[in-house]
Amino acid sequence: MRVEDITSRENAWIKKLIRLQNQAKDRRKEQAFVLEGLRTLKDAAENGVTFEQLFFSASVYSAHKDDCEALFSHAKRLYRLSDELFLKVCDTKTPQGLLAIVPMPDIIHKSLSPIGRYLALENLQDPANLGAIARTAEALGLDGLILSKDTCDPFCPKALRASMGTLCRLPLYGCEDLTDFLRKSGLTRYACVVHGQSVPIRDVTFSDGCVSVIGNEANGLSEELIRSCEYSITIPMAGRAESLNASVAASLVMWEMLG
Amino acid sequence: MRVEDITSRENAWIKKLIRLQNQAKDRRKEQAFVLEGLRTLKDAAENGVTFEQLFFSASVYSAHKDDCEALFSHAKRLYRLSDELFLKVCDTKTPQGLLAIVPMPDIIHKSLSPIGRYLALENLQDPANLGAIARTAEALGLDGLILSKDTCDPFCPKALRASMGTLCRLPLYGCEDLTDFLRKSGLTRYACVVHGQSVPIRDVTFSDGCVSVIGNEANGLSEELIRSCEYSITIPMAGRAESLNASVAASLVMWEMLG
Repeated sequence: MRVEDITSRENAWIKKLIRLQNQAKDRRKEQAFVLEGLRTLKDAAENGVTFEQLFFSASVYSAHKDDCEALFSHAKRLYRLSDELFLKVCDTKTPQGLLAIVPMPDIIHKSLSPIGRYLALENLQDPANLGAIARTAEALGLDGLILSKDTCDPFCPKALRASMGTLCRLPLYGCEDLTDFLRKSGLTRYACVVHGQSVPIRDVTFSDGCVSVIGNEANGLSEELIRSCEYSITIPMAGRAESLNASVAASLVMWEMLG
Repeated sequence: MRVEDITSRENAWIKKLIRLQNQAKDRRKEQAFVLEGLRTLKDAAENGVTFEQLFFSASVYSAHKDDCEALFSHAKRLYRLSDELFLKVCDTKTPQGLLAIVPMPDIIHKSLSPIGRYLALENLQDPANLGAIARTAEALGLDGLILSKDTCDPFCPKALRASMGTLCRLPLYGCEDLTDFLRKSGLTRYACVVHGQSVPIRDVTFSDGCVSVIGNEANGLSEELIRSCEYSITIPMAGRAESLNASVAASLVMWEMLG
C-alpha cells in the first residue's frame, strides 16, 4: 500500500489529529476520535474496525514490522510521521508510534436489551473514572454503559487509555435526558446513594432487566433522578471515609448486580 | 504565635520541602513527609498530630482565617510564604495554601491483631492505586494494609492525595520480607491471582485473622508468595479484559473479605 510521508506541522492531518485529541466538540462535529497504541488498534481491527487513516512513526515500523503490516491491512490510507512530529499528535509522553482516526459509533440510537444489566452514569466528570468503570464493566460482564449527556466524553484520550480499549468494545448508550431515558427503558432502576435509609447493595436481589445509576464524583445523583428510580441502594461504610471513589463504588455495585 | 516570613527560594525550609515532596529517599532519611490541604491537615490534627512546622500562603489566611487559626493551635512553628513561593513547594497546581511537615509513623514495629482482616500489597507500583486502595480500605472497615518493601511509598504526594487523607489514619504495616512476615503473622493467607484453578472470591469463607495479598499491576504476585499462601483466590472475569485495575481488584476482594 502506498505510504504518504507527512513532514510538516502545518499538514492538514496533523492539525486535525491535534483537534480531535484535544476538543470534544471537534470529535462530535467530525463524529470521529483518535485511537492510540498497538494493542488497542489490534483489538479494534479484530472487532471489524477499518481505519480510514492510520498514522505511524518512523521508528515503530522497523521495531514492529509484522504487527504494523497486520494493522496496515485494515487501513485505507497510511501516513508516516517523523518521531518528533508523532509526539505532537499523540496524547502520551511515551507513544507507541501508532494511531488512527476512527469513526464514532452511534451511541444514541441503540436499543437496550429488556433482560440486560446496565450501569448508568449521571454527570460523571473524570475521564479516568469513566475508563476504569468501562474496564471493570467488561471484565465482570455488564451489558453496557448508559451515559447522561453531561457525562464526560468516552472518546477523549484519557478515558480511552484508562479503559484499556474497552470503551471501544463495550456497548455504550447515549441519551438526551437520562431520567426520561431510563424511565422509558422498562428496566428496574436502582439509584446508588451515599446517605439515607437505602438498601445495602448486598441485600438487593437484582433481577434481569435492571440498571444501577451512579452520580457525579462530588455531588452524587440529582434529586430528580433519585426520585425517578424504584429503589435507592447504598454501599455501607465504616470508618471516617465520606465516600468511595466513583469507579470503586461502581465496581462494587456491578459486582453485586452481576453476581 | 510568632509567624516567620519566608521570602527566598534559597531558604532552607523551602529546599527541605521540595526534597521531601520529590524524593522517597529523603523522606526515609528524615523520617518525615509533607501533608497538603486544609481538610487533610484538620483530619491529622484531630487524630492528635502536632505540626512541627506549618506553612501557609499569604492569601489562604485572609480567605480562611478561622480554619487557619484552628490549625495554628496544633503547630509549633508557623511560616508564611508568598503565593508564588508556595507554588514551588506544593505538589498540586491549584494549592489550598496550607502544608506541614509531619513525622513518619513507625510502620515496621507495629503488631497485627490475630483476629484482624488485612490486605497485603506486594510490589504495587502506582501511588494512585495505593491511595485508592487505602481510601476503600478505610471505608469498608479493613484493619490495615501491609506493604512489601518494594511497594511504592505511601507518603508520596500522589498516594496521599489519592487516599483523601486515609493513608494517615489507616494502620499501615511495613516489613523487610513480605512472604516471611505473612508466614509468621499467624493470619490465614489468600493469594489473589488472575489465572489458574483458584477459588472464586465469592465462594471463599473468610474468617477472622486473615490477609489477602494483591500483586504488582503488570506482573501480579511472585511465585514465592503464591506458594507460601494457604489459598489462591480469583475474581472470575467475563469478556475480553485480561485483568482488572489493581485498586478495583483490591476493592472487590476487601468487599468479600469484610462482608
